[in-house]
Amino acid sequence: MTTTTSDAGVARSAAGARYAAVDWGTSSFRIWLIGDTGEILSERRSAEGMTTAAQTGFSTVLEAHLDAMGADATLPVVICGMAGARQGWVEAGYLDTPAALSEIVRHAVAVPDAARDIRILPGLAQRDAAMPDVMRGEETQLLGSVGALSGTRLVCMPGTHSKWVRVADGKVERFSTFMSGELFDVVSRHSILSHAVADAQAFDGAHPAFVAAVAEAMAHPGMATNLLFTVRSGQLLHGHGATDAKTRLSGLMIGLEIAGATTLTDDAKAPISLVASGPLAGLYAQALAAAGLTSARIDADEAVRGGLAAAARALWPA
Amino acid sequence: MTTTTSDAGVARSAAGARYAAVDWGTSSFRIWLIGDTGEILSERRSAEGMTTAAQTGFSTVLEAHLDAMGADATLPVVICGMAGARQGWVEAGYLDTPAALSEIVRHAVAVPDAARDIRILPGLAQRDAAMPDVMRGEETQLLGSVGALSGTRLVCMPGTHSKWVRVADGKVERFSTFMSGELFDVVSRHSILSHAVADAQAFDGAHPAFVAAVAEAMAHPGMATNLLFTVRSGQLLHGHGATDAKTRLSGLMIGLEIAGATTLTDDAKAPISLVASGPLAGLYAQALAAAGLTSARIDADEAVRGGLAAAARALWPA
Repeated sequence: MTTTTSDAGVARSAAGARYAAVDWGTSSFRIWLIGDTGEILSERRSAEGMTTAAQTGFSTVLEAHLDAMGADATLPVVICGMAGARQGWVEAGYLDTPAALSEIVRHAVAVPDAARDIRILPGLAQRDAAMPDVMRGEETQLLGSVGALSGTRLVCMPGTHSKWVRVADGKVERFSTFMSGELFDVVSRHSILSHAVADAQAFDGAHPAFVAAVAEAMAHPGMATNLLFTVRSGQLLHGHGATDAKTRLSGLMIGLEIAGATTLTDDAKAPISLVASGPLAGLYAQALAAAGLTSARIDADEAVRGGLAAAARALWPA
Repeated sequence: MTTTTSDAGVARSAAGARYAAVDWGTSSFRIWLIGDTGEILSERRSAEGMTTAAQTGFSTVLEAHLDAMGADATLPVVICGMAGARQGWVEAGYLDTPAALSEIVRHAVAVPDAARDIRILPGLAQRDAAMPDVMRGEETQLLGSVGALSGTRLVCMPGTHSKWVRVADGKVERFSTFMSGELFDVVSRHSILSHAVADAQAFDGAHPAFVAAVAEAMAHPGMATNLLFTVRSGQLLHGHGATDAKTRLSGLMIGLEIAGATTLTDDAKAPISLVASGPLAGLYAQALAAAGLTSARIDADEAVRGGLAAAARALWPA
């Protein structure tokens, strides 16, 4: 478990902190102390996500980080993500689609019997019989991106479970989760393809094998589980290397996702808002370009802080 | 490891045996002693597939079974499957497509320095740059089915790695492997869906959730990784049980496979030859029916014995 201390660039005194903002995922924990003018005073990241915290205790994890950051005992905390799941800290339920992003904060749940004011934001649920879906955390990124999402937008939020969301005038109309990231991981580690991708080097979306794989999966989505096998057979018969194999596997998964997700919009050629950080941002931008689509990038880290800030302003007005 | 001894129904004397036939897969080993008129004298099955035998020693495994069956020290043995892979016993190479099934036996490889005559049949390779593919074992099932495959047929061979094969006049024109079975297993055990399918009961292809899932995946193959996620979200939001979840997961994987595989034929409505045994035979027959296709069943166990018998007749004419 990594408990990284404050990033040097943003480490300042906790004295002027107005609130703490927490993005608490399944396998990651991130906390920021935010000052009067919205500035980041301090930041910590660790692997104490919901899975770990459910063992250690959510309060224990949170208070240890706040203590290490020198936060005041009365500093309020706003949290999004899996801490609000049924198997999390306190269940924060779901706001049903269609859902106005501005409504999220009104459904925040207070952690009972806590020594400080701690609020957990709800997730979103799509209770469609045929296409049931849920999100926790991404709604807060969307809330923080709302200024960049005028009119009707298709928003792509890559990750372990990628979300594609139709947002119209600040309202989430519908969304779909794609397990691409988790499948990439599970197949890389536990299937026959694990031999093909072992010892792969880092790759990026400019790799020709990536671009070609995106195009193949988009052109033949029904062949998905066959195309996956060609990662192996291409190595057996054509001697493709491990990095090519892993790059191809990534491109196939993302191409398949784009093939499906772009059927969710009436205007398949409209620019897509890409809410992403880190290497996935580059991969998806390249994949969307390979698919003939334009995308406008919104930094996912900034988006979640923006959403937590909007919630904090509503919860604790100046 | 299970080392099942002879099935009671076929246990007879090994005295009249003419040859031993072995289907040696990645994780399974099956051997039959075959008599003068092609009758099964004795049968054994075990989990000593290639993976295990590569540790134990292929000769050790084979001779132990032959000994337990009372086989003569000079009884010849014909083998198909992964024993002929590079990581198997003796590499038996590949016959390239288009490949006449009758040619397979001419490419059999003799195990060198063995105390008895042991031949391993080759696999088939499709050295297409865009759609590389390989099979080992299925070619022998096809050889054994050739009498039932007049004209041009699309043959479905379900399994861990399902094969769909275009056979025309005894020749394999092309084929595609779909990882559906392995993905079903890997996703059931290692992904977030493992929670959804835990404690599932047995199911069959008549289950409404199976039929519905086949139809959904066929209609929206690009949504495959989203449809997989609905196995989880359907449980969260609609309270679907574990058996429904596992049934749905199976139907989605098979439906996706059929969506892709039926693009491999010019005549998508022609009857499909289904070479299968056990529960998969029923599941695929139901799935094909749900897809509006007719199928004619060929028993996979009989098919592989038929192919090994054809090879034995060519190798050791009376």
